Amino acid sequence: MTTQELVAQIHAKQSFLCIGLDVDLNKIPKHLLDEKDPIFEFNKAIIDATHHLAVAYKPNIAFYEAYGIKGWKSLEKTITYLNANYPEVFTIADAKRGDIGNTSTMYAKAFFEDLEFDSVTVAPYMGKDSVEPFLAFENKHAILLALTSNQGAFDFQTKNVEGKELYKQVLEVSKSYKNSENLMYVVGATKAEFIGGIRKIIPDSFLLVPGVGAQGGNLQEVCRYGLNDQIGLLINSSRGIIYASDGVDYAKAAAEKAFELQKQMENILKS
Amino acid sequence: MTTQELVAQIHAKQSFLCIGLDVDLNKIPKHLLDEKDPIFEFNKAIIDATHHLAVAYKPNIAFYEAYGIKGWKSLEKTITYLNANYPEVFTIADAKRGDIGNTSTMYAKAFFEDLEFDSVTVAPYMGKDSVEPFLAFENKHAILLALTSNQGAFDFQTKNVEGKELYKQVLEVSKSYKNSENLMYVVGATKAEFIGGIRKIIPDSFLLVPGVGAQGGNLQEVCRYGLNDQIGLLINSSRGIIYASDGVDYAKAAAEKAFELQKQMENILKS
Repeated sequence: MTTQELVAQIHAKQSFLCIGLDVDLNKIPKHLLDEKDPIFEFNKAIIDATHHLAVAYKPNIAFYEAYGIKGWKSLEKTITYLNANYPEVFTIADAKRGDIGNTSTMYAKAFFEDLEFDSVTVAPYMGKDSVEPFLAFENKHAILLALTSNQGAFDFQTKNVEGKELYKQVLEVSKSYKNSENLMYVVGATKAEFIGGIRKIIPDSFLLVPGVGAQGGNLQEVCRYGLNDQIGLLINSSRGIIYASDGVDYAKAAAEKAFELQKQMENILKS
Repeated sequence: MTTQELVAQIHAKQSFLCIGLDVDLNKIPKHLLDEKDPIFEFNKAIIDATHHLAVAYKPNIAFYEAYGIKGWKSLEKTITYLNANYPEVFTIADAKRGDIGNTSTMYAKAFFEDLEFDSVTVAPYMGKDSVEPFLAFENKHAILLALTSNQGAFDFQTKNVEGKELYKQVLEVSKSYKNSENLMYVVGATKAEFIGGIRKIIPDSFLLVPGVGAQGGNLQEVCRYGLNDQIGLLINSSRGIIYASDGVDYAKAAAEKAFELQKQMENILKS
């Protein structure tokens, strides 16, 4: 998907909501456990109930890998269902991959060719030749970790590297990577006060912002610093939406939570 | 597996060789492509021919994920075969994972419980709460990226962070993580001259050293700086061993290459 198509979808839906599909068999409604593929059934119901409110879906790959081949099958069915039924939606494999060049190419093939995601999250530690293989695919995107939402972000990301925090070095340096127009960045909502400084370095790039909701991030704050001319934000909520209810009404409850966020986004876009 | 068991195996085999299973369908012998599971058949033959020469096997997870469910099945069969037939061998899931705490826990479950690997490689960028979940499993190990073998390592890893290179900060800071006795570190053989400095910070830890062979690293150099009282090194070779021949004699050719390295290691251990 092109960035322009993503922006058009945001305007059409008046939403820049991304729904995180971190599906844990211990947290989904008990009645689904009798299904042949509980994870896929859960995802399908959530997607069907929320696709008009969200512009992106982000399966968290760890939650599928943890169930081995069964989990990988649920993931494949989920992305196939999304692409077949809601092709306008932007899809993110939240996988945090990154390795030497020939290996990153294999990860890119896994997520862009085998599974046909639009994007994948990538860790920057190994540098240029670990990231560029993900940028070599037309209309596909690498979403590079910059400043993450967790406490451990302060271990290294905010440390001063030759006059500038490491996450700012990552932003600066990555701008020179080949096909860097296919880069987006992960910036945690719990660090909203940093977004102004981030926008000075990458004014035009899309930011994927996790941490609104369960992790405590504030939507208004993020938007104040993060919105740009073409919106430039994807706000992710996972647990706050998908686990809104653990009863038979879970999809309806998820849609209500997604609707609340979409309404707030619509108001922000209008103001 | 405990570190003591790994050290005992090294002494018994007079080898600290790790064989990387980066299995690419475009590179394995053509006659295997008629098999039902060419990747597993290839791995099985390589393992059977080399298990007395190597102390560890390291499937590179990207090469399995790139083939989707089929690849994941080959991976599962490979680790099951290793654990059933050569339980003395140390197994490494080269996956370079790392995410916020609850997600890292899911990755740890995937590799330690579902697939029963002894260890997994982990990226440090997200800090403490992204690494510690991997350290919470008894007799399992997280192998943290410190200084990698690729050119991109110079993008960030060697940059000065508050008076010290980033990779040294990673070594220092990670020593304070809970259960840090379960940590090992990735240090590229192409950066052998750095290993002396690394040993000053982590004298006792095992280092997983890729980059000998195809990537140009030198075994003697690595050992000169890296060996410690309990050996403390796992030297990985992937392409140089497993693709020594693309004919029907591939397993024999791989064993010959492995034997060359094992002999060199035996001489080093004796001197």
